[in-house]
Amino acid sequence: MSRQNIKYLFSPESIAVIGASPKKGKIGYAIMRNIIDYGYKGKLYPVNIKEKEIMGFKAYKSVLDIEDKVDLAVIVVPAKSVPSVLLECGKKGVKAAAVISSGFSEVGNKKEEDLLTEIAEKYGISLLGPNIFGVIYTPSRLNATFGPKDIMPGHIACITQSGALGGALIGWTVLENIGLSAVVSVGNKADIDDSDLLEYFSRDDNTKGIVVYMEGVKEGRRFLQTAEKVSKKKIIIIIKSGRSERGAKAAASHTGSLAGSDRIFSAAFKQSGVLRADTMEKAFDWARISSVPVPKGENVVILTNGGGVGVLATDACEKEGIKLLDDYRYLEETFRPYMPSFGSAKNPIDMTGQVTVEEYFNAFKKAMESDKISALIILNCETAAFDTVEFSKKVIEYFDSLPESKKKPVVFNFVGGVKSKNAIDILNKNNIPAYPQPERAVSSLGALYKWWRYIKTEKKKIETLEIDKEKIYSIINRAREEGRLQLLENEAKDILKACGLDVPEYKLAKTIDEAVEYAKEIGYPVVLKIVSEDIIHKSDIGGVKIGIKNEEELKNAYREIMYRAKKSYPEANIRGILVNEMVEKGVETIIGSSEDPQFGPVIMFGLGGIYVEVLKDVAFRVAPIDKEDALEMINDIKSYPLLYGVRGEKRKDINSLAENISVLSHLTYEISEIVEIDINPLMVLEEGCKVVDARMTLKEV
Amino acid sequence: MSRQNIKYLFSPESIAVIGASPKKGKIGYAIMRNIIDYGYKGKLYPVNIKEKEIMGFKAYKSVLDIEDKVDLAVIVVPAKSVPSVLLECGKKGVKAAAVISSGFSEVGNKKEEDLLTEIAEKYGISLLGPNIFGVIYTPSRLNATFGPKDIMPGHIACITQSGALGGALIGWTVLENIGLSAVVSVGNKADIDDSDLLEYFSRDDNTKGIVVYMEGVKEGRRFLQTAEKVSKKKIIIIIKSGRSERGAKAAASHTGSLAGSDRIFSAAFKQSGVLRADTMEKAFDWARISSVPVPKGENVVILTNGGGVGVLATDACEKEGIKLLDDYRYLEETFRPYMPSFGSAKNPIDMTGQVTVEEYFNAFKKAMESDKISALIILNCETAAFDTVEFSKKVIEYFDSLPESKKKPVVFNFVGGVKSKNAIDILNKNNIPAYPQPERAVSSLGALYKWWRYIKTEKKKIETLEIDKEKIYSIINRAREEGRLQLLENEAKDILKACGLDVPEYKLAKTIDEAVEYAKEIGYPVVLKIVSEDIIHKSDIGGVKIGIKNEEELKNAYREIMYRAKKSYPEANIRGILVNEMVEKGVETIIGSSEDPQFGPVIMFGLGGIYVEVLKDVAFRVAPIDKEDALEMINDIKSYPLLYGVRGEKRKDINSLAENISVLSHLTYEISEIVEIDINPLMVLEEGCKVVDARMTLKEV
Repeated sequence: MSRQNIKYLFSPESIAVIGASPKKGKIGYAIMRNIIDYGYKGKLYPVNIKEKEIMGFKAYKSVLDIEDKVDLAVIVVPAKSVPSVLLECGKKGVKAAAVISSGFSEVGNKKEEDLLTEIAEKYGISLLGPNIFGVIYTPSRLNATFGPKDIMPGHIACITQSGALGGALIGWTVLENIGLSAVVSVGNKADIDDSDLLEYFSRDDNTKGIVVYMEGVKEGRRFLQTAEKVSKKKIIIIIKSGRSERGAKAAASHTGSLAGSDRIFSAAFKQSGVLRADTMEKAFDWARISSVPVPKGENVVILTNGGGVGVLATDACEKEGIKLLDDYRYLEETFRPYMPSFGSAKNPIDMTGQVTVEEYFNAFKKAMESDKISALIILNCETAAFDTVEFSKKVIEYFDSLPESKKKPVVFNFVGGVKSKNAIDILNKNNIPAYPQPERAVSSLGALYKWWRYIKTEKKKIETLEIDKEKIYSIINRAREEGRLQLLENEAKDILKACGLDVPEYKLAKTIDEAVEYAKEIGYPVVLKIVSEDIIHKSDIGGVKIGIKNEEELKNAYREIMYRAKKSYPEANIRGILVNEMVEKGVETIIGSSEDPQFGPVIMFGLGGIYVEVLKDVAFRVAPIDKEDALEMINDIKSYPLLYGVRGEKRKDINSLAENISVLSHLTYEISEIVEIDINPLMVLEEGCKVVDARMTLKEV
Repeated sequence: MSRQNIKYLFSPESIAVIGASPKKGKIGYAIMRNIIDYGYKGKLYPVNIKEKEIMGFKAYKSVLDIEDKVDLAVIVVPAKSVPSVLLECGKKGVKAAAVISSGFSEVGNKKEEDLLTEIAEKYGISLLGPNIFGVIYTPSRLNATFGPKDIMPGHIACITQSGALGGALIGWTVLENIGLSAVVSVGNKADIDDSDLLEYFSRDDNTKGIVVYMEGVKEGRRFLQTAEKVSKKKIIIIIKSGRSERGAKAAASHTGSLAGSDRIFSAAFKQSGVLRADTMEKAFDWARISSVPVPKGENVVILTNGGGVGVLATDACEKEGIKLLDDYRYLEETFRPYMPSFGSAKNPIDMTGQVTVEEYFNAFKKAMESDKISALIILNCETAAFDTVEFSKKVIEYFDSLPESKKKPVVFNFVGGVKSKNAIDILNKNNIPAYPQPERAVSSLGALYKWWRYIKTEKKKIETLEIDKEKIYSIINRAREEGRLQLLENEAKDILKACGLDVPEYKLAKTIDEAVEYAKEIGYPVVLKIVSEDIIHKSDIGGVKIGIKNEEELKNAYREIMYRAKKSYPEANIRGILVNEMVEKGVETIIGSSEDPQFGPVIMFGLGGIYVEVLKDVAFRVAPIDKEDALEMINDIKSYPLLYGVRGEKRKDINSLAENISVLSHLTYEISEIVEIDINPLMVLEEGCKVVDARMTLKEV
C-alpha cells in the first residue's frame, strides 16, 4: 500500500513540478510561484519539455532526468498525459504525487483514473487527487497550490473535497486569524482519502484539530473506524454538505458522491466522536478550541461587564449543553471583591460597565486559580474606559506564565468595534479562542465539552456475538434452495432465538388438528398468523387473529384465516399457520436493520406505530454497537420518555431493550447474507423484551 | 400623552445637555463631545451650575435660563436631582427628554421613577429612560450618547434594552458596514417603550428595518398590536434574550424584566409578523435585507462559480424554507450560454471556476431580466482570475440604472480573503446585502420570504364573538355567590354551549332515578361522572364510568361512583352525577387558555394524552385569533399529521377544530372573569368536534 509515503506530501525534501510553466496565468506557473514565494526550503525541479529554466530553476524534460531523488511530484499536465508521467514518477522512485490535473472520474473518465490508482499501487506512490487545487503544509513552508499565496501558520489541518471552496477559505482564514497546519484538497480520492489523512494528522504534532469539508465518503466503514480512533486524540470537525435531498443531488452532480442517507452520516459522526458543523464559520470557530486544554469538570463560569451579553451567553449555554456553576455562596465570596454593589455575583457574574481592567483581570485570575471552576466564558461590551487590548495582553502574559497543569479552557467574546476586533485578533494569534459574538464563544466551548464527554467515555470493546451460526446458515440455505429472498416468520424467529433473543413460543401448524394441539401445549390465549412467502402484509388480508381464548375460537379463526388467505392470494404457497403465545401489553418498539451504500449494515430504532411511521421519530447507528451505545440511541428519540413509564405506568426494561438492539446490530453485521431485518413490534415489558413479529430479507445473489 | 413629542428625540432643533461637563472622563463630557463631533447642526446649550462655558458653548445654570426654546433635554445629573431638573424642563416647555442617569427602578428605586413618569405626563414631555446610554439619529447627525462617536448612516433603526450591548454594537456595526438610522437605548422604559418607538419608526422614511434587543416588555398586548401594524410596513427583527430558564433569571436580575413564558413571546412574534433572531449577528444579517424590494414569487435561483458552496447554499435553502426554481429546461436554455460544457445548469447553477466576470455578470443580468425568476442567491469562491470587486461594481452600476419596478431581491456571498471582503463591503455600503458565508446570505433571503409571506396574507378582521353573555355571567355569578373559583363540569359545558361549541348531551342527576330517566332521554351508551367542586381529579378516585350500556349497569355505576367519592372525600359537597352522551372515538385534542403575565389571555393547543403531557408538543397563541391563525397553530405541532388520518383512518375535521380553537380564544379574551379553561379532550371527528370534558377557573377577586 501507498499510504506509508503520505508524509512526503507534507514534508518533502525535494519537489518536481511536472508541467511547470513560465507563463503567467497557467496553473503550472501559479504553483511554482506559490512554492517559491511561500518560502519552501527544499529542492525544486520544474519539469517541462520545452523550457531550459523556469523562475531561475533548471528545468528538466522528464522527472527521470533529475539527478537527485524526488520526494514529491506535483503534476499539472493535461489529463491524457498524466498516466505516462506518473509511470515515470514510479520508475524514478517518487514517494508521493499530487495530481492537480482534472478530466478524470469527475467528467466520467473512470478508466484513466483507475489506471492512476494502479500505477500508484504498483510503485508505492502516495497519490493525492486527481482534480485538486493542491496541498499546503505550513510547518515546512510548503504551498503547492494554485490558490492564494499567504496562509497563517497554526494548528488546524483542513481537508476539503471541494477545491474551489478550499482555495477560497484560505484567504478567509487569513482575515479571521485562523492558523492552519495544512490544507489538503482530496479531489477524486483515487488513492489517498479522508481516512488516510485523518490517520496521518492524528500523528502530526503540528496539528491539534482537523476540519473536513466532505460531500461523501468512498469507504464509509473504514472512515468511521479511523475517525473513532483519531478523535480520541484530536478534535475532528466535519462539514458534510448534501444534508437536504436537493443538496445531496447537487453534491452528486458536483463530485459524483453517492447519495446515502444523511441521517446515517450524522449517526456515524456521533459514534466516532466527530463534531458535525453545519457551516464553515461554525467549523472553524470550533476548531480554534483545539488549542485549549481539556476541562477537568463541568462547572463553567461566565464573567461579563454587561448584563445583556451575559443573558445571551446564558441562553446559549443551555442550548449548547454547558453547565453553569451554581454554588452562589462560593461565587459571591469569590467575585464580590471585584465589582460595585449593584453588580451580580450570580452566574453570569455581572461586574458591570464600571469594572476596570485591573479588577476584571484579577477576577479572571481568581477564577483561573479556583479548583471549583472548570472553564470560563469571558465577555466584554466595548466601553470608552475599558482597554480590551490591554486586558488581552495581560491575559496572554498570564497564560504564558502558567504551567500546563494550571491551564483550563477559556473562551473570550468582545462585542464592539476596532478596539474589540484588535483584542480578538491578538488573542487568536496567541491561540486563545476569541469571538465577536457571545453565542460563537459559547458554541465553541460547547463543542469542546461534547468532544471531552466522548473521549472520557470508555467504550467496551465490541465482542463478536455468540450465536448458533450453523443453525442460522441452515435456515438461510433452505430459503436459498427454495429460491426465496424473504424468510418466513418462523424462520426469522428461529434465527433471533439462535441469537438469544426472547421469542415467545410459536409452532407452525399445517393442519387444524396440529393447531389445536400446539395451542394446548403453548397455553391459551394464543395468536394465529398465516405463513406464506407470498403474503407479506398478513394483517391487511385478515391473516392474523389475536386473543384466541379456547379451542372453539381457535378452530373458527384457523378456518377464517385460511379462507381469507386463499381468497386474497389464490396462488400463494401457504406453509401453514403459526400458533403463537400471546404477549402481554408493553411498549411497542421497532428495531430494524438495512444496508447503507456508504456504511454497510446500519440499525434503526423507534417506538412502534405512529412514532416511526408518522412522527419519523427514529434513531440510527452503524452496526455493530455495544449496550452503552444502544442506551444512547434509545435516548436519541424524542418519544423515549414513554419507556420510562408515563401516566402511571411502570418503567419498562430499558436495559433489556438496549441488549436486544446490540444483539441485533451484531447479527446484521456478522451475517452479511441477511440485508434487512425488521422486528415490529419488539414488546418492551417491565421485565425483558419479547419479539412479537419479525421479518428478514436475504442478499440478492 | 407624551408620545406625540417623540420626534423631538430624533430631530430636535435645539438640545440642552443638563449636567454637561468640561471634564474628560465624565459622562456629561462624553455626551457633549459626541453631539459636537458627530456634527449636530442645531443649537446646543450645556447646562451646569458651576461653568460659564463648555467646549466653546455658553453654559447655563438652569434650563430655565436658556433664552431660546429647547426641543430636547439630555439629562446626566445624579438620580436624586433628576426630578427637579425634569420639572424645570416641563416648565420650560421642553418637548423630549433623554434621562441618561441611573439609580432608579433598576436598583429598586421605583418611587423616584414613577415621579419622573408623572412629571413627563403632566408637561407632555416624551421621556426616554432613565438608565440609558443615549439616543442616536443619523439623518440629523445626532449622537447624544456616551458611546462611540462614529456611526455609519443607513436604514436600520436599533432599539436596545441593554445600554452596554447597544453601545458595544455600534462599533461592531461600523466594522461590518451596517448602516443605521437610529440607535435608542430604552433603559427602564418609564415613559417611552418599544411600542412607541416601533410606531415612530414605522412612519420614519429614513428607517426601513427595525432591530430590537429585548429582555421583556411591560405591556405585552399593546406591543403585539403595535408590532402587528408596523410589521405590515417594515421588517421588525427581535432578539429576545432569556430564552432559557436561567437566562430569564439573569434577565430579571439585569433589567427587572418579568419572566413570562418564552414560548408565548415566540407565539406573539409569529402572530405579529416579527422575525425572531437568536443572535445579534443573525438579526443584523436579516436587517440588511430590509433595503431590497419584496419578491413577486417564490422561484429562487442560485448562481455559483463553485460546486461546494452551491451545495451548502442548497442545504441552507431547504432549512430556511426557500423554494428553488425547478424548470430545468428553462434553466438550461437561460444559463448554458454562460458556462463551459462541464458546468451544471441545474439549480444551483454551477458556472464553474472558469467563469469570467463578463460571463457571470451577463448570467446575473439574464436572471434579473427573467420573469420566471423571483429572487437570486449569488455565490462566489475567490480565485486568482476572478475580480470580485470589478464584478460588484458592475452589479452596483446595474442596480443604479434599474427602475424600481425591475428590481428583485438578490443576496451575495463571497467566500475568500481581502478581495472578497472588499467586494462584500462595497456591496453593503451600497445597500446590497452581501455576506462572507453562504448560509448567512440564504438565511437573510429566508427572513425576507418569511416576512413577505406574512405581509401578503390578508388577515380577517377578528370580530367579537356572538355569545350569550347574559347566560355566561349568570353562571359565573352563581359560582361567585357560592365562593367558588372552580366551575363545575356542567357549568363549564353550559358556557361552551353558549358559545356555540358542540357539547354532547349531559344532565346533572341528583338521584339514581333521575340518572335512569336522563340516560333514557339521552340514549345508551352513556358516561357517568361525579360532580363536585371539591373533587378535581375525578378519574383518579373512580368518579368516572364510561360505556354504560343499560339501566342495570347504570345503577351499579351510580352507586359505585357515589361510594368511592364519599370514601375518598367524605367532606366533599357532591352536586350529583353528570349523565353524558357517549362520544364516538376520534382524535383527542386539548385546548386550553391561561393568563400570561405579559400578554394576558393566551390559548394552547395540542393532541391529548402523551403528546401534550410527555412530548410537550403544544402550540401557543395570544388570544383572540381567527380561524386562519388557528389552522396555522394546528400545523405548528409536530403530531398534526395524526389529524390528517394515518394508518387507514380518515381525515378529521380540521376546519371545525380550527373554529373551536378560535371560538375558545375569543371566549377567554372577552370574558376576563374566566382565567383558565381546559377542554380535555375535545374529540375531533370526521365531521365536527365534540367537547368531552371541560374545566374553568375564575379570576381571584
